[in-house]
Amino acid sequence: MVIDELRAALGEKVSVNATIREHHSKDESFHTPTLPDAVVFATCTQDVATTLKICNAHQTPVVAWGAGTSLEGNSTPIRGGVSLDLSQMDKILRVSGEDLDCTIQPGVRRKQLNEYLSRYGLFFPVDPGADATLGGMASTGASGTTTVKYGAMKQLVMSLTVVTANGEVITTSRRARKTSAGYDLTHLFVGSEGTLGVITELTLRLFGIPEVIASATMQFETVREAVDGVIEVIQLGVDVARIELVDRDAVVAVNRYSNTELPEKDLLLLEFHGSAESTAIDIAQAREILERHGGQGFKQTTDESERRKLWQARHDAGLACRAHQPNGRIFSTDVCVPISKLSQCVEETKKDLSDSKIFGPIVGHVGDGNFHVLLTCDPADHQAIERLEEFHTRLVKRSLSLEGTCTGEHGIGIGKIEYLVSELGSEAVDAMRAIKFALDPNGIMNPGKVVGEVSLSNF
Amino acid sequence: MVIDELRAALGEKVSVNATIREHHSKDESFHTPTLPDAVVFATCTQDVATTLKICNAHQTPVVAWGAGTSLEGNSTPIRGGVSLDLSQMDKILRVSGEDLDCTIQPGVRRKQLNEYLSRYGLFFPVDPGADATLGGMASTGASGTTTVKYGAMKQLVMSLTVVTANGEVITTSRRARKTSAGYDLTHLFVGSEGTLGVITELTLRLFGIPEVIASATMQFETVREAVDGVIEVIQLGVDVARIELVDRDAVVAVNRYSNTELPEKDLLLLEFHGSAESTAIDIAQAREILERHGGQGFKQTTDESERRKLWQARHDAGLACRAHQPNGRIFSTDVCVPISKLSQCVEETKKDLSDSKIFGPIVGHVGDGNFHVLLTCDPADHQAIERLEEFHTRLVKRSLSLEGTCTGEHGIGIGKIEYLVSELGSEAVDAMRAIKFALDPNGIMNPGKVVGEVSLSNF
Repeated sequence: MVIDELRAALGEKVSVNATIREHHSKDESFHTPTLPDAVVFATCTQDVATTLKICNAHQTPVVAWGAGTSLEGNSTPIRGGVSLDLSQMDKILRVSGEDLDCTIQPGVRRKQLNEYLSRYGLFFPVDPGADATLGGMASTGASGTTTVKYGAMKQLVMSLTVVTANGEVITTSRRARKTSAGYDLTHLFVGSEGTLGVITELTLRLFGIPEVIASATMQFETVREAVDGVIEVIQLGVDVARIELVDRDAVVAVNRYSNTELPEKDLLLLEFHGSAESTAIDIAQAREILERHGGQGFKQTTDESERRKLWQARHDAGLACRAHQPNGRIFSTDVCVPISKLSQCVEETKKDLSDSKIFGPIVGHVGDGNFHVLLTCDPADHQAIERLEEFHTRLVKRSLSLEGTCTGEHGIGIGKIEYLVSELGSEAVDAMRAIKFALDPNGIMNPGKVVGEVSLSNF
Repeated sequence: MVIDELRAALGEKVSVNATIREHHSKDESFHTPTLPDAVVFATCTQDVATTLKICNAHQTPVVAWGAGTSLEGNSTPIRGGVSLDLSQMDKILRVSGEDLDCTIQPGVRRKQLNEYLSRYGLFFPVDPGADATLGGMASTGASGTTTVKYGAMKQLVMSLTVVTANGEVITTSRRARKTSAGYDLTHLFVGSEGTLGVITELTLRLFGIPEVIASATMQFETVREAVDGVIEVIQLGVDVARIELVDRDAVVAVNRYSNTELPEKDLLLLEFHGSAESTAIDIAQAREILERHGGQGFKQTTDESERRKLWQARHDAGLACRAHQPNGRIFSTDVCVPISKLSQCVEETKKDLSDSKIFGPIVGHVGDGNFHVLLTCDPADHQAIERLEEFHTRLVKRSLSLEGTCTGEHGIGIGKIEYLVSELGSEAVDAMRAIKFALDPNGIMNPGKVVGEVSLSNF
């Protein structure tokens, strides 16, 4: 009956095709796929409003879909209902070089955006690795390698158009650089993983493509030395655009996978954005600090193909580790601690891996205190999943005990609801549930995610 | 009866003294003072929770109070009730040089914090001018002269402890540099002007005191030239720490007030933070750009007392304009537009001032597109207030028509509720009201502010 109403309103945009439903049943995580009852391909904000009005009247779940690259089951329709596919809303609506901002539809992908912006000499820096949609990146509060300099989605989304559960269309902010007008709805929707509304337009802050992009690498005998060096680089305010750790295990995996001969030590990769003069100063400062912390084999380049080679270990780490496990899927890990606790957190994690006999190379956005353990497993091997889950639980508890968070950038999704309560306490999560209930009283928006099930009886 | 209960629980911390109530009846705006029925001087989070529990049970309004420096009646108890004074909660609880953050109580004042932090070689950059409390600055979403480089309170508050209307104590976030765990409660409370809860602890991001602080000034024949120069400086990513406009009228007022002989032209004041090398590069770039836009009389210095002299026009502008009006109070103005619209907005505003025969020097954080017209008036002169209010309405409408906001940094308070609806639409303000009602169903938290009156019948 819901499908009939959707068809009457939206025609061919509604699909119940098995292959299409299957495609919308899972993200890139190991979580169990679940089929939506239908997929709606929206092409405009009005389509989204129509879908939500009909589904709200029938209390039918709606889960927004972008590129399906989430890592915590964030876009999996665990209660069935409608998968609302926004990938056809992929227009870049406006670019302003003067204001350094743009307005786009949510289905625009990261690489597509930067290719388009390059003609203006501009770029959007958030780089989570995957070629995700910008709507999805905003919804999960994505960040990545460049966050240490430019910030995460939280910092760079200026305004959103959002459709709420009842089909109302909200604009969260004007596009002035700053405002103190009313509650910050922009930040409320960023990172809410589609549980409060569906994003149909984004205004983003942009940056000029730097005159010079310089890359550098250094090796270390221990992760602690590398991380202690990073702490001092950050503390002294050296202007790094990326500062990434690839540990020895990951380098070994890359050498095996890519047939390279990188020195098999803990590796730091750095990038600097600026003018020729400013990057030269920044590189010299960073090098001096890192060498004092035992960094060796300093190499640098500003040539693009050379840069790619220098960063090869970082680019290939994910694939190299996935190749370690035939038929494997990524078992997502993502913790973030205050940078002063990073050495301890990484060292204890390495010991845990070794004690548990788990192969788990570590890569991370260490300038932010954020790192991942690259675990893979066969989703059919329940025992292996259980072992990794136990390790993962210990990892998250370790992060929380060190004043960290259970997720720096992947979001809560299905997997981390209980950790959210451990992290912030039931009073904070109750406040989130009260907000969820206020904006989505029928609980149709991506139900079961982030704050779990919400009903009037919670209050 | 409420007061009896408060006294029984909090003893001498509760005052009904007339002078104390009078002191809590008004902020620095021209809005009509209104007396609270009592003032509670909280000394800990528990005092705040106790106060809120008692007041919530009796549906008695509670308005948080810091330093009383707000400019839109934000802290005025317009419905009476309790003024909850947090100024005695002025402890700096923790400073981490490694993590570049600190945790403080809400009554800590800006200057006190920076004096304390200087022993660590650190500082907190947000500078709204007034020596406000950090709790108040977070509540109003303050920003100021350094926001162009370091961001506003929105960007620099990492976590809050907040007591909600029912007396529950919430921690909004861990102190990791980034997180995507759950809804962003931190940003929901920042800028909510005490209408959703009372902040009792703040964790703030800090920065190292730069090795070199260099200041510079330049004069321009027209505001348009000055602003067009600023746009290009920002667009090319020159690393300015402050870039302020003081228009010719303000310079004239300063010369009269401070007996100085500054060149009576439109003035840009700049500050650069970094190393000796990096600031030299930044200054040369900025100078070259601004001279192409007609900038003249470039002066620079790194000496602190010289810097103060160079910036005298900016420091004295407020006092000079207030002196223009005996017994005057500031008539607060604050708009912010996308920087591409700034020249037009400032030019049209100057024409409006001239047409309306209003004395209104303009100063502004032009790197962010934010400016103020320094209006003063005798609060007893109702005709004068009406004339200024009409001008002010035109100014806000102009900002909104240019995709700007009705307030870049002063907040909504009492005065701008209707503009908030014009700015974001009734759907967005209804969503804010739904959130307000969810977290404060009895409407006791700073009632009548930001979103106006809220009751179940709104929904």
